[in-house]
Amino acid sequence: MKKLINDSDDVVDEMLDGMTAAYPDMRRLPDTQVLVRDDAPVDGKVGVVSGGGSGHEPTHGGYIGDGMLDGAAAGDVFSSPTADEFEELIAATDSGEGVLAVIKNYEGDVMNFETAIEMVEMEGTDVATVVVNDDVAVEDSLYTSGRRGVCGTILVHKAAGAKAAEGEDLDEVQRVAQKVVDNVGTMGMALTSCITPEKGEATFDLPEDEIELGIGIHGEPGTERTDVMSADEITEELTESVLDDLDLDEGQEVVTIVNGMGGTPLMELFVVNRKLQELIGDHGLETWDAWVGDYMTSLDMEGASITVCAVDDELKELLGAPADTPGLTVQ
Amino acid sequence: MKKLINDSDDVVDEMLDGMTAAYPDMRRLPDTQVLVRDDAPVDGKVGVVSGGGSGHEPTHGGYIGDGMLDGAAAGDVFSSPTADEFEELIAATDSGEGVLAVIKNYEGDVMNFETAIEMVEMEGTDVATVVVNDDVAVEDSLYTSGRRGVCGTILVHKAAGAKAAEGEDLDEVQRVAQKVVDNVGTMGMALTSCITPEKGEATFDLPEDEIELGIGIHGEPGTERTDVMSADEITEELTESVLDDLDLDEGQEVVTIVNGMGGTPLMELFVVNRKLQELIGDHGLETWDAWVGDYMTSLDMEGASITVCAVDDELKELLGAPADTPGLTVQ
Repeated sequence: MKKLINDSDDVVDEMLDGMTAAYPDMRRLPDTQVLVRDDAPVDGKVGVVSGGGSGHEPTHGGYIGDGMLDGAAAGDVFSSPTADEFEELIAATDSGEGVLAVIKNYEGDVMNFETAIEMVEMEGTDVATVVVNDDVAVEDSLYTSGRRGVCGTILVHKAAGAKAAEGEDLDEVQRVAQKVVDNVGTMGMALTSCITPEKGEATFDLPEDEIELGIGIHGEPGTERTDVMSADEITEELTESVLDDLDLDEGQEVVTIVNGMGGTPLMELFVVNRKLQELIGDHGLETWDAWVGDYMTSLDMEGASITVCAVDDELKELLGAPADTPGLTVQ
Repeated sequence: MKKLINDSDDVVDEMLDGMTAAYPDMRRLPDTQVLVRDDAPVDGKVGVVSGGGSGHEPTHGGYIGDGMLDGAAAGDVFSSPTADEFEELIAATDSGEGVLAVIKNYEGDVMNFETAIEMVEMEGTDVATVVVNDDVAVEDSLYTSGRRGVCGTILVHKAAGAKAAEGEDLDEVQRVAQKVVDNVGTMGMALTSCITPEKGEATFDLPEDEIELGIGIHGEPGTERTDVMSADEITEELTESVLDDLDLDEGQEVVTIVNGMGGTPLMELFVVNRKLQELIGDHGLETWDAWVGDYMTSLDMEGASITVCAVDDELKELLGAPADTPGLTVQ
């Protein structure tokens, strides 16, 4: 294994310091792996926070900034942050208006966020939650009861962050976050395994002539191994699975995301987007906005996921509202 | 080789269609591999264009938009665009105020841009050029007389694009572009080779226990093969080479870029940025802005480059001015 790291034990710590060195609008809470807006808590605004294992960058710390997250807790690579860290995150981002916790559906994240919430509620902080479970590939998985939370989470961050930036209250911020959760689906695939810094070898074995459909973002198994397929065939498999699940009416407007898993050239993501947009049209749907890039990665894994989210006027306004973060800027 | 492509002969064509499907503010000139702003030529504004081989995305098409490029020609993977395509690019972006061509120093790009310029000048179009040669690793190389043009080119796009957006004339736009060229240096390294779609196997052989310093963006040889080193050691090698070349005075403000080569997890780029900023401080320099991400890639190569550019008040204003492109947004 060759990686641009020092000691694998220090990689998250050093990454977080590298982030605050790049982005002076963020700061790290002392002796934690928690990043928050430098001006947190923001007076009069509901806080919006998230968190989870590291290795998915820019998720989640890269979405801290105006119009998205107030802060994020980073666990070790592919490991949940502790309840203590979630507690510090919520405390540091509550201005008195309450905090929305956006939780990807993994058992560790859910459990540790819930423990943290019990603690801060005893101190009088209002907390609302949404649990994102957009992965249509599998019911239950290695780390999950119910569906996994994957790239659709970014749209939840965006909509909730925009609503909070408007000065709306916690109930409203939670409502729009849940509205995204109710209208989004994602499915991913891998050409290659990821390699964690700690283990230093492939998390799973994927022969040179096979790919895995329905893969999770930690290298956990998908739905099916198949022979290598073309980009168009892969895009069709993923898109049809997502659209089957969403069951949208003709004429429905959608946001689409072609998300790279970390090691995939951007060139290939555009090749996928070309076919995706053709399929969206074939289904009588209308793309309101198409995102292409690395939004929620799995270290150096090569592969991609496709996300589709049905949008109405309210979600279009929120997803199109200004945001200024390292991982996503809308103006 | 596993890639998210269909036929390797179609990959650039399909990528370009995937880009225009994602970005309605861009259009593709018919029967070419040229992308331009949808509203090109922009009345009363100097055009700023670039181009080169594909495989470096988001370079260059991803920098088309307000405050950066008016258009870009995409060659086949790692191949120069033709003179005809450069000619169409310049013609489509000239509003009568002239066009600045930002050329990375590769023999094919320089030759084909020059041929195109001779043609359009006969039609009465004013064209100015800058040749970017920021790679401090090697004098002359496989595809170059003199130093190669690499990631510093993005800063040239940004400064020239901002100056053009202010409505300044061609001489002024060229002057600030050249100012960036005169003040920027870059050096890169690879952990792994890239794999082109056409060849389907590693462009060069790099053993599991070695890395290559001073690598080019097409897999052309660097300055030195060494045993695997830590991120801090690699960062020090690259940074010291760049700073030796620039020979800056103490107290000088700089922009830094940690650029991923396409297959490198963002996590690792932040680990590099942490050490880079420490070294910048050790040299008595001051970072005015730090960029971290995939700006100029080499397909799926794992590795990174470090760019340092000395900035004065004028360059800070231009680099900090608004820009709205898929690959870089400043607000």
